Amino acid sequence: MKIAILGYGTVGSAVVETLLKNQDLIKARCNEEIIPVIALARSLKPNALIPIVNDIDEVLEREDIDVFVELMGGIDLPFEIISKILKRKKSVVTANKALLAYHRCELEKLAQDTAFGYEASVAGGIPIIKILKEGLSANNIVSIKGILNGTSNYILSKMTEDSAKFQEVLKKAQDLGYAEADPTFDIEGFDAAHKLLILANIAYGLRVKPEDILIEGVSKVSDEDIYFAKEFEYTIKHLGIAKIKDEKIELRVHPVMLNKDKMLAKVDGVMNAISVDGDVLGESLYYGPGAGGKATASAVIADLIDIARKEKNSAIFGYLNDTSYELLNKDEIYTRYYLRLKVLDKIGVLSKITHLMSEHQISIDTFLQKPKKEKQDYSTLFFITHQTYEKNIQILTQRLREQEFVKDDVFMMRIED
Amino acid sequence: MKIAILGYGTVGSAVVETLLKNQDLIKARCNEEIIPVIALARSLKPNALIPIVNDIDEVLEREDIDVFVELMGGIDLPFEIISKILKRKKSVVTANKALLAYHRCELEKLAQDTAFGYEASVAGGIPIIKILKEGLSANNIVSIKGILNGTSNYILSKMTEDSAKFQEVLKKAQDLGYAEADPTFDIEGFDAAHKLLILANIAYGLRVKPEDILIEGVSKVSDEDIYFAKEFEYTIKHLGIAKIKDEKIELRVHPVMLNKDKMLAKVDGVMNAISVDGDVLGESLYYGPGAGGKATASAVIADLIDIARKEKNSAIFGYLNDTSYELLNKDEIYTRYYLRLKVLDKIGVLSKITHLMSEHQISIDTFLQKPKKEKQDYSTLFFITHQTYEKNIQILTQRLREQEFVKDDVFMMRIED
Repeated sequence: MKIAILGYGTVGSAVVETLLKNQDLIKARCNEEIIPVIALARSLKPNALIPIVNDIDEVLEREDIDVFVELMGGIDLPFEIISKILKRKKSVVTANKALLAYHRCELEKLAQDTAFGYEASVAGGIPIIKILKEGLSANNIVSIKGILNGTSNYILSKMTEDSAKFQEVLKKAQDLGYAEADPTFDIEGFDAAHKLLILANIAYGLRVKPEDILIEGVSKVSDEDIYFAKEFEYTIKHLGIAKIKDEKIELRVHPVMLNKDKMLAKVDGVMNAISVDGDVLGESLYYGPGAGGKATASAVIADLIDIARKEKNSAIFGYLNDTSYELLNKDEIYTRYYLRLKVLDKIGVLSKITHLMSEHQISIDTFLQKPKKEKQDYSTLFFITHQTYEKNIQILTQRLREQEFVKDDVFMMRIED
Repeated sequence: MKIAILGYGTVGSAVVETLLKNQDLIKARCNEEIIPVIALARSLKPNALIPIVNDIDEVLEREDIDVFVELMGGIDLPFEIISKILKRKKSVVTANKALLAYHRCELEKLAQDTAFGYEASVAGGIPIIKILKEGLSANNIVSIKGILNGTSNYILSKMTEDSAKFQEVLKKAQDLGYAEADPTFDIEGFDAAHKLLILANIAYGLRVKPEDILIEGVSKVSDEDIYFAKEFEYTIKHLGIAKIKDEKIELRVHPVMLNKDKMLAKVDGVMNAISVDGDVLGESLYYGPGAGGKATASAVIADLIDIARKEKNSAIFGYLNDTSYELLNKDEIYTRYYLRLKVLDKIGVLSKITHLMSEHQISIDTFLQKPKKEKQDYSTLFFITHQTYEKNIQILTQRLREQEFVKDDVFMMRIED
């Protein structure tokens, strides 16, 4: 089985190296040789193990290629290229989460008679796509909760471990190569949102774009939140959450306070983990490296082996065209909330705050006010509410911001029970 | 697709109930109806949802059955029945780990042209068979380490959580239904050994029986060991371990001291978890319910859906007939060891012990002697050695037992780094 690699960066070179290094194993496992014969790259690579060209048509016109592996990144050009390839009934394996976040339905329609694999697009080498499509196929998926971005998880873990501030830890992450020079895509939740959409699509068949869902990053989490979490036996994690609620799907990506005894709360560093609740199995969790050349190559090659075994069928059965689920409106999210705010230390402030809360149907589960530091006028207050609607919390936080005794912003984080 | 259920106990009834309850979902997922038409049980069940018979031939002779689901338990009779069915080119799905621990190679040869699924035989509903065979197919498996028996894990977790003694916790487990009246098969490691063999067979293609491997249970773990583990930041877990070492396979099932920061160390209660180290991906971990009617039904039905999708191919490619790996001799296990022994409180004892250790090439990493309790003649000593061979530790422990200053047995546990 001959393959072409489109894009010869960290993942592309890892795929080629692994196909060569493990060729005997792979041949034994699928009764075929999987041979990378050509790669496309913007610049030529002197030490490459296979011929590299920079003319895309030279690769696309090769009739002898069975599978094209797209590792280019970007959305429009890969979409155009992959569509062409699928129309010619050739197979495609991709790692491109952005492409799939926007175009998966169209591409799966085009791939009806051929193979289209994208295991590598979510959670690196953890075979979560296969697990959801096949291993858990007997289950209605009640919820998916995932630590889907290693950069964000590293930052939160390190802030917790070292009781350190966000900016310090971000800098350290950048030094270690765990965060980009411009880290926005990772730390503001967009990367996790793309991956969540792909998983939600497999579980529920949604046609939703990243712009439609609630996305919040980790950049506003402070060392004070970390401190509070430790005191009250929570762990702060950045999760992508998909759940069924009243025949609608809730989709959101944001930091949460999680009970420290949950398995998801115990996942540290750059690792990813996805917790799935199925109506037959109950909760299961899948943990491993979510990024990196070899981790991603492991998933790409697993797809190639499936194709060689002629086992790949890309259709999401039953969800291909229609979905009966609507997206839940953000206002209808119903959970417990954490609030942190700085207030002037004077008479009547707490009374006003608690009055505002009861006006908006919000009651208090936990409250902490630490003695203020010397020479400061402001105290920091920490609340956890009982369950309430997102709509109520948004109005409350807005009204709190308007109070003259509140300094700076009001920080809100959702609790995930 | 018509199926027959052989054995209508907890799992059999859960399979039928789920096939009926989730029928729309299942039909959407594989474009077929999966219909249980008849079941075999020793006694008739008045509330059963499908016809139950107690004559096996009545079931086997049905030409209209596509897949037989074996949930009978036992070894010889299921082996005979499944062999007959496979020879007639019908498909089989089983949950029978003992059968597979002894007869998987023969059965897979018979299943060359038909489908043979056994996802349900290891780790309940965690799709670990599929993960090893397909999701991680690009990897040479460096090691597998699994918490494979929920009863043993529950006992060790509870002993740790409550600082309680083994017998107390075993009784509690029996009261809760987590342990049988005769708990031997679970707590002495045999259940975990069967499951480990199945996993090792997929990863390495071994032909090994449970009698060939090292199996130790949890019944000798004491609250003193739990105490020591906490002091030195270990957690005690009962693991099934398979590793490649010098072109041989190490297979062993026994309690270990694990560093408390490992993901495997964080798995509590009756849950199972398998950590797999692949040469491309690195470490990944799979966690979920390892037993129970519905958890097992989730795996059985996933196999049925695979068969309906015509994706099932039972052959372990490349490993069907020959394997180049030998089993490592137990004496050659090379790791760190924990020792606990009670010694007479008199001059020269520690000197004799440390002399014996150096005679056998064993050096000390950690040592604890707590002050002895009043009115007792004996102190308890705790050691962790540096890495050494199993052979040396076995001789050392034997020589220690022979010393007149040593009371009762010498307890040894392997460390897993």
